[in-house]
Amino acid sequence: MQLKWGIVGTGRICQDFCLALLTCDPHEHTIVAISSRDKTQAENFVKEFNLGNQVHAYGSQEELFQDPNVDIAYIGTIEHVHRDLCIRALNHNKHVLCEKPLAINVDEVQQIVDTARKTKKFMMEAMWSRFFPIYNYLRDAIKNIGTVTFVECTFCVSGLVSDGCWSTLMGIGCYPIQAALIAFNHEEPELVTATGHTREFQGEITDTMASITLLFKNNRMAVLNCLGEKIGAINSLTIHGTEGVVSLPTNFWCPTRIVLPNGHHVDHHLPETIKKTNFVNSAGLRYEAIACRDQIMCGKTEHPLMTLENSLQIARIIAQARKQILAAKH
Amino acid sequence: MQLKWGIVGTGRICQDFCLALLTCDPHEHTIVAISSRDKTQAENFVKEFNLGNQVHAYGSQEELFQDPNVDIAYIGTIEHVHRDLCIRALNHNKHVLCEKPLAINVDEVQQIVDTARKTKKFMMEAMWSRFFPIYNYLRDAIKNIGTVTFVECTFCVSGLVSDGCWSTLMGIGCYPIQAALIAFNHEEPELVTATGHTREFQGEITDTMASITLLFKNNRMAVLNCLGEKIGAINSLTIHGTEGVVSLPTNFWCPTRIVLPNGHHVDHHLPETIKKTNFVNSAGLRYEAIACRDQIMCGKTEHPLMTLENSLQIARIIAQARKQILAAKH
Repeated sequence: MQLKWGIVGTGRICQDFCLALLTCDPHEHTIVAISSRDKTQAENFVKEFNLGNQVHAYGSQEELFQDPNVDIAYIGTIEHVHRDLCIRALNHNKHVLCEKPLAINVDEVQQIVDTARKTKKFMMEAMWSRFFPIYNYLRDAIKNIGTVTFVECTFCVSGLVSDGCWSTLMGIGCYPIQAALIAFNHEEPELVTATGHTREFQGEITDTMASITLLFKNNRMAVLNCLGEKIGAINSLTIHGTEGVVSLPTNFWCPTRIVLPNGHHVDHHLPETIKKTNFVNSAGLRYEAIACRDQIMCGKTEHPLMTLENSLQIARIIAQARKQILAAKH
Repeated sequence: MQLKWGIVGTGRICQDFCLALLTCDPHEHTIVAISSRDKTQAENFVKEFNLGNQVHAYGSQEELFQDPNVDIAYIGTIEHVHRDLCIRALNHNKHVLCEKPLAINVDEVQQIVDTARKTKKFMMEAMWSRFFPIYNYLRDAIKNIGTVTFVECTFCVSGLVSDGCWSTLMGIGCYPIQAALIAFNHEEPELVTATGHTREFQGEITDTMASITLLFKNNRMAVLNCLGEKIGAINSLTIHGTEGVVSLPTNFWCPTRIVLPNGHHVDHHLPETIKKTNFVNSAGLRYEAIACRDQIMCGKTEHPLMTLENSLQIARIIAQARKQILAAKH
């Protein structure tokens, strides 16, 4: 069965997602519609990616949601409108894959979750990292390093703040948090502590640099650093267990290499895209698309590797961290 | 001129320091006395390291301090008695090199500092890391990576807690802190935040695992993790600047390798000791001994790379961190 995708938005991540879909088996994945608030942009998108005349270019998201040919909406707009778009798509009986962060606070995430559960459509936050083949090796390795006692993860995105990102934690916080939660099997931390720097942006104080510590009972801890400044970045994840260590030494959020507990590494190369992607390793967005289809084919409404409860937990941790960082600056 | 060392204590670090001194030029460094609270232990120490009959084995620290032949006392006892021993040695007109931590709280460190300044003898906390040849490369590299914006350092000592260390931060906290302070040129942090785990030890709550964040003004930060648990440890220091990164990828506290901003590495091998040392790379203790002599020869009372004010600053940060971690558990 072909899963028919409607792409909501025409920005850089939508372009990359489209390129990734085009690496999938066309008998399984096809793009049938693109929408933008500006119809010309949607039309240009269809032309630029050579999608063909059968793809509808809509000048509003509503028209895409009303298109009976669309099975699943990929929402790749800015986070401020995720809540409304997800709820509208679900209420139009579309399955939904929505970019991270799922919404801008826990309440909004809960509203999406409630709507998804009511409509019984498949709904997932686009935590693409978790569907990379290397993450399968990671999950296996975690089972073989005894008790996980310490997770260390740093994500520096050069120029995130200067590009006008309103909050570093909103922009990239989900990545190290989701990685730590895989290591600790989504256990609830005993204590979330965060500290960091802020700046004034559009009249609001917001976070630019953060260190989040998650304390888990029995002497276990995760230290997660997020930096939106232009610095030489080493973006790695290290998971220490009582019996060994496993790490993603670079690009931990879209990895092509893992260093196993025995010190050996495994490489997994990504397919070529027909054009250069905007972001690093975006061909890997294909894996989350394939994961959505797998579950939808089985009639499932959530993916076990990225459930709605997982999204709520990540949103709760981001909210606590932001609150502490902003409170310290007032 | 030969600097005549009196070794106060016979424990594992004293043994290693002695082995390191024996790698130095004997025209420059000689051991003339060993003291212990148990004279037999001091005598056995002289025999074990084949120091010869001219070395005095004393059954009390006081006798060593009274020995007019001793120029400098190396104090390698447990931290609880550092304050008293340093003050007594200084008051007997000895120069002093005292193991880390200099004392168990800021007040005690201040008392040592006050005594050193009054007696005008050379006094230094034995922050051996700073005298490794690799640290010279590190200091040079820091000048060439623009503005330092982020420092990340993790120190895990396998079995520190199970060995009965009463406080992980007291045991190893000084190492990542001193490394971060080199990177930030001993600037005072705007905010010190710490979180971590604790346990009850001898009726007291003490820290076992900590993450300390130092916030410096203008969007700069250090994240320093100390773990006293048995975990697979990757003990690295990474200093991120606006123009590049420099790192000590392993054994950052006693390094033999640096990865320079251009990606190349430099290795510096340590000399062989006549016996195996208790701790990793202890031959490198020689560099702090040589550094002491250099300053004493010039009539200096502090070493510019590890001043008494540096010791006070490190002690203040450890104190703040411990207070926050213990307070969170009450």
